[in-house]
Amino acid sequence: MAFVNDNFLNIPETYLFSEIARKVNTYKEENPSANIIRLGIGDVTRPLAPAVIKALHAAVDEMGDANTFRGYGPEQGYAFLRETIVAKDYTARGIDIAPDEVFVSDGAKSDTGNFGDILGPNNVIAVTDPVYPVYVDTNAMAGRAGKPTADGKWEKIVYLPCTKENNFIPELPETRPDVIYLCYPNNPTGTTLKKNELKQWVDYARANDVLILFDAAYEAFISEPDVPHSIYEIEGAREVAVEFRSFSKTAGFTGLRCGYTVVPKTVLVNSAEHGRVPLNRLWNRRQTTKFNGTAYIVQRAAEAIYSAEGQQQIKETIATYMNNAGIIRKGVEAKGLSAFGGVNAPYIWLKTPDGISSWQFFDRLLNEMNVVGTPGVGFGPHGEGYFRLTAFGSPAQTEEAMQRIANWKL
Amino acid sequence: MAFVNDNFLNIPETYLFSEIARKVNTYKEENPSANIIRLGIGDVTRPLAPAVIKALHAAVDEMGDANTFRGYGPEQGYAFLRETIVAKDYTARGIDIAPDEVFVSDGAKSDTGNFGDILGPNNVIAVTDPVYPVYVDTNAMAGRAGKPTADGKWEKIVYLPCTKENNFIPELPETRPDVIYLCYPNNPTGTTLKKNELKQWVDYARANDVLILFDAAYEAFISEPDVPHSIYEIEGAREVAVEFRSFSKTAGFTGLRCGYTVVPKTVLVNSAEHGRVPLNRLWNRRQTTKFNGTAYIVQRAAEAIYSAEGQQQIKETIATYMNNAGIIRKGVEAKGLSAFGGVNAPYIWLKTPDGISSWQFFDRLLNEMNVVGTPGVGFGPHGEGYFRLTAFGSPAQTEEAMQRIANWKL
Repeated sequence: MAFVNDNFLNIPETYLFSEIARKVNTYKEENPSANIIRLGIGDVTRPLAPAVIKALHAAVDEMGDANTFRGYGPEQGYAFLRETIVAKDYTARGIDIAPDEVFVSDGAKSDTGNFGDILGPNNVIAVTDPVYPVYVDTNAMAGRAGKPTADGKWEKIVYLPCTKENNFIPELPETRPDVIYLCYPNNPTGTTLKKNELKQWVDYARANDVLILFDAAYEAFISEPDVPHSIYEIEGAREVAVEFRSFSKTAGFTGLRCGYTVVPKTVLVNSAEHGRVPLNRLWNRRQTTKFNGTAYIVQRAAEAIYSAEGQQQIKETIATYMNNAGIIRKGVEAKGLSAFGGVNAPYIWLKTPDGISSWQFFDRLLNEMNVVGTPGVGFGPHGEGYFRLTAFGSPAQTEEAMQRIANWKL
Repeated sequence: MAFVNDNFLNIPETYLFSEIARKVNTYKEENPSANIIRLGIGDVTRPLAPAVIKALHAAVDEMGDANTFRGYGPEQGYAFLRETIVAKDYTARGIDIAPDEVFVSDGAKSDTGNFGDILGPNNVIAVTDPVYPVYVDTNAMAGRAGKPTADGKWEKIVYLPCTKENNFIPELPETRPDVIYLCYPNNPTGTTLKKNELKQWVDYARANDVLILFDAAYEAFISEPDVPHSIYEIEGAREVAVEFRSFSKTAGFTGLRCGYTVVPKTVLVNSAEHGRVPLNRLWNRRQTTKFNGTAYIVQRAAEAIYSAEGQQQIKETIATYMNNAGIIRKGVEAKGLSAFGGVNAPYIWLKTPDGISSWQFFDRLLNEMNVVGTPGVGFGPHGEGYFRLTAFGSPAQTEEAMQRIANWKL
């Protein structure tokens, strides 16, 4: 008889965002006239940039003509896009990355989730906490997390707390893990590591033979000069770090699906039988065997982001979102709440007042003010007592939400 | 120190199609004026249907307008597509499938490759042999194949030979496996199972608590009435079978990327701790955690295939390919070679003459006739001595290739 992967059954049934959706739907059914403002899930609301739309139409026309039709593309992505990524995201910053170190995909969720395929089952995994749930959940699926514990953790995961107390800068782990996930600018806290802070992690990884999986999905929102856009700005990172990038938030591709992962050929990891092995070769093998490339038209759309007009257009959109972020941060601070992020990231992370739990705050904000946010505890145990608001709403709705919060009898 | 998944290192370096590409490129460098005809890799050549192009343009325009823009969609696919699939591919054939049993994806390669995520590591896997290499390779990556053996097999895989001797109809396994992959119409042999033949497998699976992973990627090419289009045409299959479908060959989506997987809620598999568990729930969890849905515009394109004009257009394209298949089969048979398939599938599977190996035949056909095909042994050990030609070329090139073969001093 066939057996399931029992690790899946250790994972709690309810996923954070489906639980939120359930609560919002219930409230709407009971209050059909309520004008609910959603500052919860991190989805964008502005349309694709005109340069992207133009590129999509052109590529669609190519697909309708026998002379320009494209069938299977390279699983790793077309050279035109890999080379553009290298030139604009790396060479332009003085970083040495080759096109065959870039793997185009249908998004960073797939890549961060699937990357565990090429890692052994016994690696000890460390995550900053709170963090994007995919890192922990996918390692739990692969058996690297052990069992969940009563305090909302997993027995084998090493948690690196990021709280108000340490200014959201994680301390180096006390016991050495094998793999560390870092996400900067951070989801959900909106905080960053400066160059000298990130350097400590790269140095630690080099000294201790640790693999860093660096999620830079929010890189485009960085506004301060000393915040690194890529981990490869740090010397030695090419030996220890894999970097995940996404066009989802950069250019509103959440519904179009494109991202990429950089696996430098210099990142070597250990094999029991074969010594040091380059991860680049294994990820290439994984992608060629289990993935058939990103749609040609989507890759042309991604390429268009890098054109002069594309850059101008996405910068305007990002400026709109970051203006929202400023409004939110100012609004919650005016209410007397401690708030973080919102400067180099589209997320504002606030401390709930008076020891209210994350879900209590969620319920009150929904029921009393008809504003939806995300309970911090949904991102990990050290998110308890915090709450995430996102800057992806419209300016009008964002203003309106802050007006409601200003009038809230909290 | 971080460890790799050592199972990856058991897999031979060279992937079939990259080895073919290498040989063809070498030949072209040495013979720059050669007019090479490719009947090797199973990629389509005809452009997307006008109805699909129209739907793509319309959906692109929606993405450029704030009022109709779509961000994250449901990971499982939009209701409009899931419901259309159910109505047209299942209800219309009298099959009971619900929309929440259909999971839209970026293609059958991803789904067949990723499906192992939700299965335990100790399942014994059976494959018909020869077969699409992804089944074996992805199970090897997950450790279910053990080590490769000297005769081109994997020690833990159960091989079900499909050869001329058994008319490509596999015999039920002598020792019971836990999971069986079936691909019908078959890649690479182009052969099929008739309803009564497939029924034996469903009955066997029900009697022995075996999970069938049924790959129906070539369903659209079926021309004979007693060949099932879906395994769910067989009574009881809803209890034991998962079905993979693809728009790649059906509608030329190899470069657009869309497929779907049907996981009936009635398929239960065993958990060591939790008894019988529905696979539907686990696949849903896998997809929501590691995948972020297929591009909205691509799902609208897939929907357009099912429109009256879309159906008409793709049927014309399939007829063109199947006409090629007839030309190839006739051509190789006129040469005195035994040939199979090409009636319900775009693949012609031929027996190499005089005990020539698959790769010898490949080299001779390339070097002497400048025609590229696929060595049968690339699909598994029982493919040795066979060779695959595909019907996806242009009619003119297909005719020309057969002309060359007719004149070949074989």
